[in-house]
Amino acid sequence: MPQHLTTTDPDFAARFEHLLSMKREDAPDVDAAVAAIIADVRERGDAAVIELTSKFDRLELTPETLAFSRAEIEAAVALVTPEDRAALELAAERIRAYHARQMPEDASWTDAAGATLGWRWTPVSAAGLYVPGGKAAYPSSVLMNAIPAKVAGVERLVVVCPTPGGVVNPLVILACEIAGVDEIYRIGGAQAVAALAYGTDTIRPVDKITGPGNAFVAAAKRRVFGKVGIDMIAGPSEILVIADRDNDPEWLALDLLSQAEHDEVAQSILVTDDAGFAAEVTAAVERLIPTLERAEIAGASWRDYGAVIVTKDLAEAAALSNRVAPEHLELCVADPEALAGEITHAGAIFLGAWTPEAIGDYIGGPNHVLPTARSARFSSGLSVLDFVKRTTMAKMTPAALAAIGPSAERLAQAESLQAHGLSVRARLDRLNEM
Amino acid sequence: MPQHLTTTDPDFAARFEHLLSMKREDAPDVDAAVAAIIADVRERGDAAVIELTSKFDRLELTPETLAFSRAEIEAAVALVTPEDRAALELAAERIRAYHARQMPEDASWTDAAGATLGWRWTPVSAAGLYVPGGKAAYPSSVLMNAIPAKVAGVERLVVVCPTPGGVVNPLVILACEIAGVDEIYRIGGAQAVAALAYGTDTIRPVDKITGPGNAFVAAAKRRVFGKVGIDMIAGPSEILVIADRDNDPEWLALDLLSQAEHDEVAQSILVTDDAGFAAEVTAAVERLIPTLERAEIAGASWRDYGAVIVTKDLAEAAALSNRVAPEHLELCVADPEALAGEITHAGAIFLGAWTPEAIGDYIGGPNHVLPTARSARFSSGLSVLDFVKRTTMAKMTPAALAAIGPSAERLAQAESLQAHGLSVRARLDRLNEM
Repeated sequence: MPQHLTTTDPDFAARFEHLLSMKREDAPDVDAAVAAIIADVRERGDAAVIELTSKFDRLELTPETLAFSRAEIEAAVALVTPEDRAALELAAERIRAYHARQMPEDASWTDAAGATLGWRWTPVSAAGLYVPGGKAAYPSSVLMNAIPAKVAGVERLVVVCPTPGGVVNPLVILACEIAGVDEIYRIGGAQAVAALAYGTDTIRPVDKITGPGNAFVAAAKRRVFGKVGIDMIAGPSEILVIADRDNDPEWLALDLLSQAEHDEVAQSILVTDDAGFAAEVTAAVERLIPTLERAEIAGASWRDYGAVIVTKDLAEAAALSNRVAPEHLELCVADPEALAGEITHAGAIFLGAWTPEAIGDYIGGPNHVLPTARSARFSSGLSVLDFVKRTTMAKMTPAALAAIGPSAERLAQAESLQAHGLSVRARLDRLNEM
Repeated sequence: MPQHLTTTDPDFAARFEHLLSMKREDAPDVDAAVAAIIADVRERGDAAVIELTSKFDRLELTPETLAFSRAEIEAAVALVTPEDRAALELAAERIRAYHARQMPEDASWTDAAGATLGWRWTPVSAAGLYVPGGKAAYPSSVLMNAIPAKVAGVERLVVVCPTPGGVVNPLVILACEIAGVDEIYRIGGAQAVAALAYGTDTIRPVDKITGPGNAFVAAAKRRVFGKVGIDMIAGPSEILVIADRDNDPEWLALDLLSQAEHDEVAQSILVTDDAGFAAEVTAAVERLIPTLERAEIAGASWRDYGAVIVTKDLAEAAALSNRVAPEHLELCVADPEALAGEITHAGAIFLGAWTPEAIGDYIGGPNHVLPTARSARFSSGLSVLDFVKRTTMAKMTPAALAAIGPSAERLAQAESLQAHGLSVRARLDRLNEM
């Protein structure tokens, strides 16, 4: 049974705190195994990657067959139905249009002291995208990771995607094609992450690695962080729905279940100011679970981590949501814009009952790679900014240096960094001689 | 002796590759010790922090004396000379003006399908700033970390700064005051990071931790990453100077040494198109080293990690610099703006010979917390963006859902996520009934 909480319950504070601190990670500790795999790939390159792929994916490769050939890509793409292709292309177009607006601008100005200051953004040169294989090979994730990289101007975009037993998902390959991916390798696990970070004879290294994966992939990304950049380490997913009584209980039940069906450790939370409506949604969820193909997963998630919270008003609902800092937040209320103004922490907000969260997963335009496990308190979803970096710029004139240099010299002295001070002093002395 | 390379040398490629891959980290492996400290602080809170401070900092505290009192802050601040105060205030003012321009803008638009899309930026609620104690307690680092946080709108800004043996650096306390820091605790090491991440009875937890520290602090930040956000893990610092012959060799020697004096594992690299000028700068460096207070550190850095590279022209110099991706890059050439246009990876660029890197450390305005160890290939210096996060927004009208919903439904089916598709279908069916 999901948890039922009412903010007027005497034990509400403790129960809500428990809800916030529930440990939903079920990742096994694979760190030692991953360290060994990375060391092996650094040492033996292609040979290690090929052996590990044989072992874990039951697939025999050679350096020549690590990458998909052009003919293989075209053969895979030809298997996609025109309807699926059209849907993927519409999604790509909308994701591209949204992310194009995220490109940050360069700046340059000259201040009163005569110093010219500013910054410039440049793209990461090469990025690697991890795409999980098998059932969780989601073409939508390819678009959500690859398109921001290409919009940012990444020159070389590499996908690694394991194909256990050689099974290829044609939609994933098509998504790579649509997004402009430059190379696709049929490898996965920690060995693929190591190959991207350190390079092999066949696979040149990249500068940044993004994309979701299992415990091995997550541990490998943590380990190569520093050598390359990584995106966030994704945890189990969650949705919080704030709804007033003027909603169709079945719509909201489906929205809650669309999170629950992802994963046994996904979390779906309904927050409403109407106890009767809460009961209606709960009943709809229970009625719908057995009808789902993924009934077992969705049922386990709802039973173990689901929650229904009744508040005295919507302001209280917003305040609780801010403590959860949910990855996905639906505002199914009469004035969603007003309520959004009270939200301080959330990965993505879906405004109004006509905006089911699933729209954001596929086709809305915003990214579906979002901060999980309360990390929306301090981090953002994937964006073009993940594939660019900023170089700050400063230029002094002699007059500007004369104006502010002495303060730099003094602070350098205060920090006992003599050469710092002298590098300024040598120039100031020259000015005094002039 | 520093390395001397000329791009026309037959073994240049191999030697440059060696320079790029030199391991400069000398951090001992303290991970197990740090894990134990964090577990202890999570378990026992204040008591653990107090015990560890007694052990490592030889300082006896109580829960009441963990924080600096108002009277203690004022007493420390009163010790600062008016000249030092004025320098710190000018630095703060310039850093604030620069970072104020970094505040990103919200966006909202309605597209052709009728979907209203956009994003909103909100500040991190509470941030913790680690300030090293002892000799490396740099007031400039307090400003560089704290001011972006306050510009971003962080409500609660906490500093932890160990005071081994009770010794307080008045300039550090004054920098906290000027920057608007809300709480200062006299604790450090992994125990301070753990207290910030998990909270104790006395210290409320924060959402993000930034700031430099020793191996224990770095390991602790890595471990609490996920529970809270962290900034980059700083490695040893480096400077690359590209210079033509029309420069004062001594100025450039001082610039190279102002990096070398930081740390035995700092790296200073001169790249010039003039072999004779290279020799002059090298001679000036050798001449100056013994005159420095930190002669031993600067000498070791220059001997072990310094490099002088002669190129055939400045374009080649820029290309080499891009492979290094230096933290600091000085362009001491006739047309620094033109050369800057060829730079793709660098933390900060200093344009022209009148802009010594030390200006950027203290007073220029840009941040001095910059990506080290070649990570400018994929990351940026500290900025206001590190203290805000983006929430994406989407709102569908019924017409917008009718236009793009079917594609979302199809992609959900292709990914076998049935409830996702049904959450869209339920709404589309309603529209068909209407």
